[in-house]
Amino acid sequence: MKTLEVDVGHSRYQIAIGPGLLGNRAVLDTAIPGRSVLVVTDATVAPLYLERLRSGLGGRRVAECVLPDGERHKTLQTLGRVFDALVGARLNRDATVLALGGGVVGDVAGFAAASYQRGVALVQLPTTLLAQVDSSVGGKTGVNHPGGKNLIGAFYQPIAVVADTDTLATLPDRELRAGIAEVIKYGCVWDPELFDWMEGNLEAVLARNADALTHIIARSCEIKAAVVAKDEREGGIRAILNFGHTFGHAIEAATGYEAHLHGEAVAIGMLIAADFSHRLGLIDAAAPDRLQRLLRRAGLPTRPPRFGAAKALELMQMDKKVLAGAVRLVVLEGPGRAGVIAHYDKSVLDATLAEYFG
Amino acid sequence: MKTLEVDVGHSRYQIAIGPGLLGNRAVLDTAIPGRSVLVVTDATVAPLYLERLRSGLGGRRVAECVLPDGERHKTLQTLGRVFDALVGARLNRDATVLALGGGVVGDVAGFAAASYQRGVALVQLPTTLLAQVDSSVGGKTGVNHPGGKNLIGAFYQPIAVVADTDTLATLPDRELRAGIAEVIKYGCVWDPELFDWMEGNLEAVLARNADALTHIIARSCEIKAAVVAKDEREGGIRAILNFGHTFGHAIEAATGYEAHLHGEAVAIGMLIAADFSHRLGLIDAAAPDRLQRLLRRAGLPTRPPRFGAAKALELMQMDKKVLAGAVRLVVLEGPGRAGVIAHYDKSVLDATLAEYFG
Repeated sequence: MKTLEVDVGHSRYQIAIGPGLLGNRAVLDTAIPGRSVLVVTDATVAPLYLERLRSGLGGRRVAECVLPDGERHKTLQTLGRVFDALVGARLNRDATVLALGGGVVGDVAGFAAASYQRGVALVQLPTTLLAQVDSSVGGKTGVNHPGGKNLIGAFYQPIAVVADTDTLATLPDRELRAGIAEVIKYGCVWDPELFDWMEGNLEAVLARNADALTHIIARSCEIKAAVVAKDEREGGIRAILNFGHTFGHAIEAATGYEAHLHGEAVAIGMLIAADFSHRLGLIDAAAPDRLQRLLRRAGLPTRPPRFGAAKALELMQMDKKVLAGAVRLVVLEGPGRAGVIAHYDKSVLDATLAEYFG
Repeated sequence: MKTLEVDVGHSRYQIAIGPGLLGNRAVLDTAIPGRSVLVVTDATVAPLYLERLRSGLGGRRVAECVLPDGERHKTLQTLGRVFDALVGARLNRDATVLALGGGVVGDVAGFAAASYQRGVALVQLPTTLLAQVDSSVGGKTGVNHPGGKNLIGAFYQPIAVVADTDTLATLPDRELRAGIAEVIKYGCVWDPELFDWMEGNLEAVLARNADALTHIIARSCEIKAAVVAKDEREGGIRAILNFGHTFGHAIEAATGYEAHLHGEAVAIGMLIAADFSHRLGLIDAAAPDRLQRLLRRAGLPTRPPRFGAAKALELMQMDKKVLAGAVRLVVLEGPGRAGVIAHYDKSVLDATLAEYFG
């Protein structure tokens, strides 16, 4: 088991990464205070891991809330079901919400924990690679609105994250690849060595080699923890973690959050953002080419549906990173270096959007 | 105009109190940053004050969201309407939410501001006495759940509070009296001089004398600001501001939030809590008698509907102040002195509930 610490000033917590953690009573006793918990999970994860988790929870009072699976259920309505479960189990301020699942479960359960009784304890138990390397760490929680992704939510840090790598054994290939997209992202914006490592060891990751998985999860969490420690509320540097996400969000919104997994949309978005960076003269053409080759080897999509440049721009403007009308975009400035720009030649963005979205 | 400052460490803001503030462009320009606002108000307040506010907002881009009036609409569904308005007006992170109305509008709009894009600026423009002396200050926001009041919400401080005392001219008598209940509360738990002052000047307040109103609003806000500065998240002393509220919440929940205004339920709850304090031997019998006389002179109810002691206890146990099963209660310990107790003779509570709820 590997342990990392996240320190965001007002809140410090540990991330435990390794095999066999969900059924490990000692690990869970360290992570979870109190006697009463609500496990929030989904219909896919519940039959696989709920019993294992229950065995690790010992004599606690355990209530459960099983949500429908999928990004399209990441709504205020689904959030309401979690509140109903919390109230129905008569859980009070001393309760802990356990988010057992992928990014959707973590985001919805996290926002519910942030809001129930104006805040109860939250422990993230991520079961997908995407959640283990990204969404379970850093405190972003929330739900989607028909007008855009993650428009409603809270910054709310968990009190612990327990990432059981055994859960990746049952992860569908497509979801594994979607998680890999976020790992590649850390390589692009922060850590050129991680990018190189992914180029050299992608096959081991795709084969779910335990050491390879532990390495990329731990390294990704280290990077995310470092960035979040500097800027929890995304006033500055944290925004670089959104590399590819503004384009990606537009793709997800245009297709009703159905056609692509989040990581797939981010993969396409990263490539568009890298190409945009090249068109602005910030990086040479080799960088987007190299990124495209790695994404393709990982089995990730690199072209969006052609729903039109105008529609893409409109959806990007609803993204949260739009300040006073200007679409702020994360661009690459070199290997492992990224920045956020708000002032750029608008015709370059238009040409980029026309190239990809038609 | 009187100006007070609230300082909760991570956040400082000013409360402006006085006549003619809603249409005062200089005051609003100081309070409201940015060019884009969403005014959240209700169907009662909108025809009275929305135009006046609009005239004070100058050239800003102003979107509006008019909610149905009443505590029964303080729900997740109504919250969703505010999000729809924010998204519909394409408001981004630089927008400011203006809460123009009473406690319900302030709580719903405040929670929406806390959650939209994980937090946009909030300015409270309270138009009822209750909101001006209590709910607009201190950062508690949220909505009700069928299982209990304010079970879902956030601690979220406004960036400014502007209390225009002119708005109290149109306040129904019953709502004025409900606000007076919270002023009397500050006298009970913090400031014996305020209690004495209310006994001596109640007629002037009921007659809406401008100086009398300004005095009680400013003094109430001073007390609330002092308490919130010590304990924003109600880990300790802030809980004394809930004097009467645990009993009051049970009364509101049992009657579907319809029979009593919040302040009326608090009035009854304060009297029950004072009597409970006396039964525990903490204060002598003169204190609840004196409180009852003042509440009655203010035209406030002092007896709850007799829906049964068992039901009352059940509803109190769902209140947020219940920690690990024990009903924590705010008790009086002397003039202007209150405390929170979790350990007490349970039979005394049962006898108190039987006396009032049957």
